[in-house]
Amino acid sequence: MASWVEQMRELGVESLEALALGAALLGTGGGGDPYIGRLMAQEALAEEGPVDVFEPAEIPDDAVCAMSAVMGAPTVLVEKLPGTNEQLTAFRALERHLGREITHIICAEVGGLNSTLPIVTAARTGLPMVDCDAMGRAFPEIQMSTPTLHGISASPIALADDKGNAVVIDAVDNDWTETMARSIAVDMGAAAFISLFVQSGAEVKKAMIPSTLGLAERIGAAILDARASGSDPVAAAMEVVGGFRLFEGKVVDVERKTTAGFARGRMQISGLGADSGDDLVVEFQNENLIATRSGEVVATVPDLITVVDSDTGGPITTEELKYGLRVEVVGIPCHDAWRTEDGLRLVGPRYFGHEVDYVPIENLIGGET
Amino acid sequence: MASWVEQMRELGVESLEALALGAALLGTGGGGDPYIGRLMAQEALAEEGPVDVFEPAEIPDDAVCAMSAVMGAPTVLVEKLPGTNEQLTAFRALERHLGREITHIICAEVGGLNSTLPIVTAARTGLPMVDCDAMGRAFPEIQMSTPTLHGISASPIALADDKGNAVVIDAVDNDWTETMARSIAVDMGAAAFISLFVQSGAEVKKAMIPSTLGLAERIGAAILDARASGSDPVAAAMEVVGGFRLFEGKVVDVERKTTAGFARGRMQISGLGADSGDDLVVEFQNENLIATRSGEVVATVPDLITVVDSDTGGPITTEELKYGLRVEVVGIPCHDAWRTEDGLRLVGPRYFGHEVDYVPIENLIGGET
Repeated sequence: MASWVEQMRELGVESLEALALGAALLGTGGGGDPYIGRLMAQEALAEEGPVDVFEPAEIPDDAVCAMSAVMGAPTVLVEKLPGTNEQLTAFRALERHLGREITHIICAEVGGLNSTLPIVTAARTGLPMVDCDAMGRAFPEIQMSTPTLHGISASPIALADDKGNAVVIDAVDNDWTETMARSIAVDMGAAAFISLFVQSGAEVKKAMIPSTLGLAERIGAAILDARASGSDPVAAAMEVVGGFRLFEGKVVDVERKTTAGFARGRMQISGLGADSGDDLVVEFQNENLIATRSGEVVATVPDLITVVDSDTGGPITTEELKYGLRVEVVGIPCHDAWRTEDGLRLVGPRYFGHEVDYVPIENLIGGET
Repeated sequence: MASWVEQMRELGVESLEALALGAALLGTGGGGDPYIGRLMAQEALAEEGPVDVFEPAEIPDDAVCAMSAVMGAPTVLVEKLPGTNEQLTAFRALERHLGREITHIICAEVGGLNSTLPIVTAARTGLPMVDCDAMGRAFPEIQMSTPTLHGISASPIALADDKGNAVVIDAVDNDWTETMARSIAVDMGAAAFISLFVQSGAEVKKAMIPSTLGLAERIGAAILDARASGSDPVAAAMEVVGGFRLFEGKVVDVERKTTAGFARGRMQISGLGADSGDDLVVEFQNENLIATRSGEVVATVPDLITVVDSDTGGPITTEELKYGLRVEVVGIPCHDAWRTEDGLRLVGPRYFGHEVDYVPIENLIGGET
């Protein structure tokens, strides 16, 4: 991906539209409804004022950083509008368990709700954010985070729900954290607010992917500018992010079920225009995992696969998919951390049950941009 | 039940055989293998010396009492011999969460493993025990505890496993504690070590059932004495506990499956001697729940139903049941706390899915002793 290091000092209401739009694109269909996250962040920023955002390089090595996020089936979050209290309950439960104060808020993923919910936590606690995330996209499971590749523990993790339940898990590894936290999230109503991945500033600099909030905002701004000027919003987004247009067509079938805290399923798109006569099948587990064009794989995790509205360039989450939508499917190279042997073991297609080798998207589609 | 208040000052290795035997009888088929619990307590008492045991009336009102126990399918505990570390991990995790030291150990149930495991925790921590439990028998779920009837919270509850995972749950009520703790216990391998139901000394005096460890020891001693003197061990046990002989026969069928952290099933016993020509069916969920003699209910929860070996009077747990065993089934009146409206809502036959009204066992069988 392009280098996009720049410094953002304050994040206010005016950034949210572009940020939520860009984060939805990086969310690859998952991460929950970006509109809900945007509304919550808007309210928090309007009431509390803008949030300070630092680049990882700017924070002290002994900073105490932690994620504030939501886990579970995003399908449920559409129906269950989250409050702010649960987020703060999880955050404070983690602090209490640590026996010290968290100094900086970080993002679990730059995708959908989880890129805007940390803004709410930052605004409500008065703490600064660090511009980084642990995926460079969205992934469905906790251990699928770059800190895992650096041996950093996801636990202690605190979970809270809207009823007042709170749980703290200290697990022996990040797979165990995922297993137990997922069970609790299911009990809590298929979704839970979480705080996790406590890291020092030094660890954040080493293990997190920098500047992805800034990237999301620039993607979103490019889409908005293109819409305003009547140019092609999908092309504008792909230029910022270095991605590829994979397919254009109409959604003709969507299968989806919510099981064990995930929304799993597949969609089928019948080609239009240059893609007429072909079809594209995308399978997902919260996030889009693999795209197959008339039987041939054209993109797989960990590369990003996102379905966007053909006209507006607006990303469409897996829970918004429905028959008849005219869409484009785009593919974006993932962060280099995921292209390593360790990275692919954690988030490659085989982990998700697809018996194919990962081939970088730029090789799969023959290098066209 | 008879009144059995007396004072025990020290509990040593010499008490364990009788205590484990009596607790198994009160365990109504559940509570895990009493032999494993006895071995663990024996080792701990031999290494650490005897444990001080107080009656509830003797402890200060501001004592900080907590249970140390195991939850899950006892079927699993037979195969997975528990260590001591997990118990102490759960205990220390609870203390850490509370931010204060626990001063007294209490029993969750007087049945099987959970009457002897607290002895291990007491021996290893050097803390005294209080002679009481929360059920006067064994029950399969956490909220089925007399403190629930007094509005005392089961959480915070700490759970630990043999892998090093630890979890602390703060739930809004005891049903939520059960739900979430059960999920974690299943993740941990269908069984978990737990510490829970933190209570002041004043609460213990009000909410716990006193002197049940002493009762268990006296039941066990009566069985052992009868065996030694060649008299009837079942009669001796029933005399101590005020119980009834319900049926004598041979086990002809056992169905059992371990699901969602419980061992559920039913056994069928074909009558012998005076019961020849009849059969008795006992259904269980970890513990025996309901006994039906040739279609007619003869005992239900919350009264105690225990299967004992016809010759030795030794209680048989649900996981030890097998075809061909010659057994007697006995019934024992439960503690009065369970015969109230609130008590029956928590542990009556309807809670367990049996559409029958609870009738005290002494009425059901017509008053014979």
